[in-house]
Amino acid sequence: MASPKVKLTSLSKLFFNLKAELKPISGESRVSVENAVNRILSKDIFAKNDNPPFDNSAIDGFAINQEARSASKNITLLEGLLRPGSRSRIKLKINEGIKILTGAPIPAGTTRIIFKENTKEHNQKIHFVQDDDVETNIRLRGEDFKKGDLLFKKNSQIRVTDLAALIGSGNSSISIVKPLKVGLITTGNELNASIKRQSKGFIFDTNSIPLKSLLEKWGYSVVDMGSVGDDIGLLRKKIFDNLNCVDVFVTTGGVSTGQEDFVSQILSSEGQLINWRIAIKPGRPFICAKLGAKYVFGLPGNPVAAFICALIILRPSLGRLGGEKEWFKPFSFKAKANFKKYKRRGRTEFLRANLNREDGFVSTFPLEGSGRLSSLSWSNGLVELSEEEQDIDRGNFVNFIPYGSFFQ
Amino acid sequence: MASPKVKLTSLSKLFFNLKAELKPISGESRVSVENAVNRILSKDIFAKNDNPPFDNSAIDGFAINQEARSASKNITLLEGLLRPGSRSRIKLKINEGIKILTGAPIPAGTTRIIFKENTKEHNQKIHFVQDDDVETNIRLRGEDFKKGDLLFKKNSQIRVTDLAALIGSGNSSISIVKPLKVGLITTGNELNASIKRQSKGFIFDTNSIPLKSLLEKWGYSVVDMGSVGDDIGLLRKKIFDNLNCVDVFVTTGGVSTGQEDFVSQILSSEGQLINWRIAIKPGRPFICAKLGAKYVFGLPGNPVAAFICALIILRPSLGRLGGEKEWFKPFSFKAKANFKKYKRRGRTEFLRANLNREDGFVSTFPLEGSGRLSSLSWSNGLVELSEEEQDIDRGNFVNFIPYGSFFQ
Repeated sequence: MASPKVKLTSLSKLFFNLKAELKPISGESRVSVENAVNRILSKDIFAKNDNPPFDNSAIDGFAINQEARSASKNITLLEGLLRPGSRSRIKLKINEGIKILTGAPIPAGTTRIIFKENTKEHNQKIHFVQDDDVETNIRLRGEDFKKGDLLFKKNSQIRVTDLAALIGSGNSSISIVKPLKVGLITTGNELNASIKRQSKGFIFDTNSIPLKSLLEKWGYSVVDMGSVGDDIGLLRKKIFDNLNCVDVFVTTGGVSTGQEDFVSQILSSEGQLINWRIAIKPGRPFICAKLGAKYVFGLPGNPVAAFICALIILRPSLGRLGGEKEWFKPFSFKAKANFKKYKRRGRTEFLRANLNREDGFVSTFPLEGSGRLSSLSWSNGLVELSEEEQDIDRGNFVNFIPYGSFFQ
Repeated sequence: MASPKVKLTSLSKLFFNLKAELKPISGESRVSVENAVNRILSKDIFAKNDNPPFDNSAIDGFAINQEARSASKNITLLEGLLRPGSRSRIKLKINEGIKILTGAPIPAGTTRIIFKENTKEHNQKIHFVQDDDVETNIRLRGEDFKKGDLLFKKNSQIRVTDLAALIGSGNSSISIVKPLKVGLITTGNELNASIKRQSKGFIFDTNSIPLKSLLEKWGYSVVDMGSVGDDIGLLRKKIFDNLNCVDVFVTTGGVSTGQEDFVSQILSSEGQLINWRIAIKPGRPFICAKLGAKYVFGLPGNPVAAFICALIILRPSLGRLGGEKEWFKPFSFKAKANFKKYKRRGRTEFLRANLNREDGFVSTFPLEGSGRLSSLSWSNGLVELSEEEQDIDRGNFVNFIPYGSFFQ
């Protein structure tokens, strides 16, 4: 599909406008740490205690009190075993030692912990066999963080790798920005009423469930408003009736300039347009506007284009509306092109791509049509060709974004 | 913490053994496509219909019947508009055309669709203004896939990028391998009973919730069995009482060689050991064994070590037990080291790392202790140093695994 020239907004300009336009939607709530992943902090998080909360042994061995490393290598062994989760009033005097297990609080007077394997025990004495261990093997109270330390900044997102620090710092629940409620509407007369049985001349709605899954993976709460035919009255009603039930709308289809492209007609006539028609491929007819107090993101109807626009444009935009301070940018890296391509300058292209992890070469789906559903499942990421790039030759380095980057 | 030499199994040998040992646990169930993400297919998936299901227009324009591209450029325009979701009995004769919208079934006789912008309409005739479009702009029935085509192979995992093809191929529900039920037990006398209020001498359990989150992100159903103190009787009872309630056990703590390391004591005396003590850092004391008919994966007690072992060892192992044919391998790429390091040959190390996306340099957490919870949240991925690597110099390329790779 070639297409006549129309004035397009570059992706960088769209991002510039969205960054200026989109402000976090207010509202706070509180969740337990079990439900913290993907949530955006509404307040800074400080440690409520030191971690470790007390000096403890990093190994199984003997806690000893030795004046200096060069001092006596015969240590008198006290009775007992210090276990984790136990408290003891023992105080080691010089040249005394006691058995200790990993994680146990160290007794007063401990200068270091030595490995059992480096010693011999004889007549209630520990004799050093070797002493080349330069560590004290003590985990000091607060060496990880101290009570009052700033651990997480307001407006950052909690990931699964943050949970241990949250729990260890006594933050069993956290204040978060209220998760966005995203209203999802698919449009098109051609959409079959059900995904179970097909009617002649209709197609299954391959936008609704994939987009819902994406939005939920990102932690949003999705209000599925179903599908609307190409009828401006019905579409207006669906949007305006629900304007107060959601924080933001995502639609698919009806965003071109045709006579039955009603999403773009409503948004451009009744909304405050941010941008329409972007120099990206796929996804050119993308539109976004403010309708009343709510933003509407109009994705194209083609399922591949809608999905890729969701990854590239919706993810950072919803992130910002949902309270993220940083504009989301997916991880990417350079991989060698296993393809040749000429592209138009000024346009950003996202090619469905498959990275071969054996040889490091990235291939692109041989056919570009954005109706090809099989191309999405064939790919394991996207090749991003920037506005400036034009001629790509086999062996050139191109930017590869593995899909995992969008779900970190 | 340096440590005395004991015989360790290399990570590659552990993987070799696990691949040989672990077989998919049988059991099948069925889910609707809405719940398909992360699930493993128990059967091949074939297309139940062609996609597209009928020839349709890729653009808004005129469907025309033209004998050849060089033929008449004056086309007689028929009355009407062909919409998506509508059926029409129109048959275009040579040099006839009709208005058509994107997605509408093309009328019989159509040879191609032309853009309105490339034509002039006058007196019920379409005159070509320009004709440099080499495409037909027709999406042909079955050009994506055909009824009966194999779309997804048995024992592969469904990702969010597969949903559109599943729906578009009429597979609104799929047969899957029953999701694994993973029993999670944390051990240690030092673990506080609650994560809400700390008692003196105890620490919060920073393993349970992060591991549960990880396992759930991977699509497993987690049976949280809580925490057990260092008591061999209680631990035995907890495991054996629940042996028939879960498919596999994951434990933390108690896996070293000390006198109160009861997980390893039970597994090595009563189980069929697969491997114990691995040449990895962190995670050296890792153990896995079969107890009765169930596998037990004993992670170390240190939360950073437990978390990293879960990513590196549990993810592929549980994948295999859960029906994945491919041994899971996370995406990684080469990044420039912003650090110097000497490591022991034969050991695989996973360093908590932070990739600076501006300059492409990857830094590692300055302190290696695996009790440092802040290191996990500081990092955005892991640097993997292989068994062979020894001297890493600043500027060398090292293997970086972004955390997103584990959640694709």
